[in-house]
Amino acid sequence: MKVGILTIGDELTHGMIQDTNSFLISREVTSERWHVTAIMAVGDDGNVIRDALKYLMERSDAVIVTGGLGPTADDKTTMSIARTFGLGLYTDESVLRHIKERFEKFRIAWTENNTKQAVFPQGAIPLYNPIGTAWGFSLKKGGKIIAVVPGVPAEVKRMVPQSVIPLLRAEFPEAVRYSAKRTIKLFGISEAKIDETIAGAGMDIPGISIGFYPRFPENHLVITSQGDDESSTLRNLDRAVARAIGRMKKYVFGYDDATLEGIVAALLTEKGLTLSVAESCTGGLITDRLTNIPGSSLFFDRGIIAYSNGSKMELLEVPAAVLERHGAVSEETAVLMARGVRKLGKTDVGLATTGIAGPTGGSEAKPVGTVFVAVAGEAESVCRTFHFRWDRRRIKEITSQWALEILRRFIVEGGAK
Amino acid sequence: MKVGILTIGDELTHGMIQDTNSFLISREVTSERWHVTAIMAVGDDGNVIRDALKYLMERSDAVIVTGGLGPTADDKTTMSIARTFGLGLYTDESVLRHIKERFEKFRIAWTENNTKQAVFPQGAIPLYNPIGTAWGFSLKKGGKIIAVVPGVPAEVKRMVPQSVIPLLRAEFPEAVRYSAKRTIKLFGISEAKIDETIAGAGMDIPGISIGFYPRFPENHLVITSQGDDESSTLRNLDRAVARAIGRMKKYVFGYDDATLEGIVAALLTEKGLTLSVAESCTGGLITDRLTNIPGSSLFFDRGIIAYSNGSKMELLEVPAAVLERHGAVSEETAVLMARGVRKLGKTDVGLATTGIAGPTGGSEAKPVGTVFVAVAGEAESVCRTFHFRWDRRRIKEITSQWALEILRRFIVEGGAK
Repeated sequence: MKVGILTIGDELTHGMIQDTNSFLISREVTSERWHVTAIMAVGDDGNVIRDALKYLMERSDAVIVTGGLGPTADDKTTMSIARTFGLGLYTDESVLRHIKERFEKFRIAWTENNTKQAVFPQGAIPLYNPIGTAWGFSLKKGGKIIAVVPGVPAEVKRMVPQSVIPLLRAEFPEAVRYSAKRTIKLFGISEAKIDETIAGAGMDIPGISIGFYPRFPENHLVITSQGDDESSTLRNLDRAVARAIGRMKKYVFGYDDATLEGIVAALLTEKGLTLSVAESCTGGLITDRLTNIPGSSLFFDRGIIAYSNGSKMELLEVPAAVLERHGAVSEETAVLMARGVRKLGKTDVGLATTGIAGPTGGSEAKPVGTVFVAVAGEAESVCRTFHFRWDRRRIKEITSQWALEILRRFIVEGGAK
Repeated sequence: MKVGILTIGDELTHGMIQDTNSFLISREVTSERWHVTAIMAVGDDGNVIRDALKYLMERSDAVIVTGGLGPTADDKTTMSIARTFGLGLYTDESVLRHIKERFEKFRIAWTENNTKQAVFPQGAIPLYNPIGTAWGFSLKKGGKIIAVVPGVPAEVKRMVPQSVIPLLRAEFPEAVRYSAKRTIKLFGISEAKIDETIAGAGMDIPGISIGFYPRFPENHLVITSQGDDESSTLRNLDRAVARAIGRMKKYVFGYDDATLEGIVAALLTEKGLTLSVAESCTGGLITDRLTNIPGSSLFFDRGIIAYSNGSKMELLEVPAAVLERHGAVSEETAVLMARGVRKLGKTDVGLATTGIAGPTGGSEAKPVGTVFVAVAGEAESVCRTFHFRWDRRRIKEITSQWALEILRRFIVEGGAK
């Protein structure tokens, strides 16, 4: 089943507000395993609305429209849709009564232009709005459905799943399919490399489709399975996921809604480990991410943002001689920072970063983007060296990501205890 | 001049990501006083891309396209545009060389599919991408322009104002009007209050339009002036800005591209002041923001993320008795943390936060959202108490914003020295 989405309002084409309605609707439609043919946004202009509606109708079984249903003169959606199909208009008396009652209940003065919100194209069926004044409507034309709801995001969020989707399911029962999907989250492998690996992974399983979604610094792979019954749909999904991750296992850090900081937090909590963090180039981003997780105080003791050499020496016990000989940005300093913060916080694990985030501060031997990440446990410590490109912010982001990933592997491989 | 906007990518029609590119482009186009005919988003499908492009071309003088320029098989934009106009493809050797150099410089393994990013339709002119690998291109057909840029939002944000808009101005000189705009950035005042203030500020100056953009936790007011000559356009802009900020001066922290952290960093640097930060509930977000500013090492010495009571006592010298009597989340603790970190870092100023970010940890006396922010100088210290609603992340964000704002006012009012 093919669905077009049309959002209407001058505020969209004038760059006044971000259109969030089409995003919300495309998620609802996709989760039914229906296909979004195109998303369009146009201003409050009758001819433009007609053209866009025709374009979408020609390519879709149903079109979901939002916006332009208010009481004022610039709301032209109902009239434009009626004209597109050569239909007259009618006033629905029960809807009008309902709107008037609402005004009385909330003690709002009635103005005559509100009558407009009870006017619909001939043949349309009003759609109840549980939170706002303007009702929506649905219209059937040539076996196709047009469903119209107001443009207020909170109303779209309620009315699309509660009214529009059930309506479309009822009108197109053959389009109701079993489907399931899984998002595989990868880090440390390039988009091109994933593409190459997937191409040779034998993914031509019935009903399986694959999407790539780069989310710097991560890459997400979404595998969707659809079929005529539940068990084969799920079986095919499992097979596809197993094949996809087969040769990339090492780069998979989680699935679906999981975040790397959430996974690290869960690991630390589950194993009863405590953590201290010493950050130089990441400047607090690692602890910011970890403390986004509710309950992080269970494992996280303290963080030191050791920007100056003085702070590295005084708080983390990095000897002046090491800073002098190897520099503040070096493997030696990184490892001593991780050990130092671990000792300072009396925690099981210490994590540290030091690097040159730029744009200045680089040298021939250590250009901008040179970064060291170290993790220290009771018995062992590890350090990795990186040479990143990107700007200052992205260097901070990818360094924080690698730091969490190195910590994750360290815990999983038993280095923390 | 009429401009169509087309964003391409399965992630848009599949509801995987919110399309922010078309919003950004519609703002840029509107601020040139050009008209957006329609915004469309379609998946990575050659025929669908062709139909959408034709639809927009018929109704516009120029079409700005984003997305689908990457190296993988599902990136189909270049090929689809070439086919739409019956054009062949060519490889631009100098672009290819440039991409390869980039890979070498950043030590990324070259895979052959990256060659695709140097392939363009015959007659297209490559558009340089200052931050990513994929170049854009522009194509002239029947007196109309198609300008294509990669879909990565950071790249769109750079390439549209720096390459695409100047290109369109050059191609359509008759559409160029004098225009100037200024963004006023406010914090600590509600959207409704700004609306009310502006309504009574006498903003009916010729050629002036006002846009309102809430950016949690900030509010941005964009004033655009247009006219037939430069001097009146700028004079009207200055008048409008002066009237707008007249009664809201206290809430204006900056203009245009300025960030609060950037303003605080500039103030500290200019006055030769040094800073240490002690964070509890913000978990590193304040130092993360400050260290996003290049050269922050000039004023920023160290940060302490004092999550545990132990870290507050050991590093910041908050007495156990204070923590016991008043609690870790209290005005007393916040002030002692600010003084403690100032002393520890031997800096001019100390800044501290402590609060309950939730979702758990609240009590009747101190519900979730209770936050204390303190700043300490040589002679004086100040503390402010907040009761925020919002979720954990937003409490962190608005607390970090207030902390920077309180620090800014403290410095401006001379408390730091």
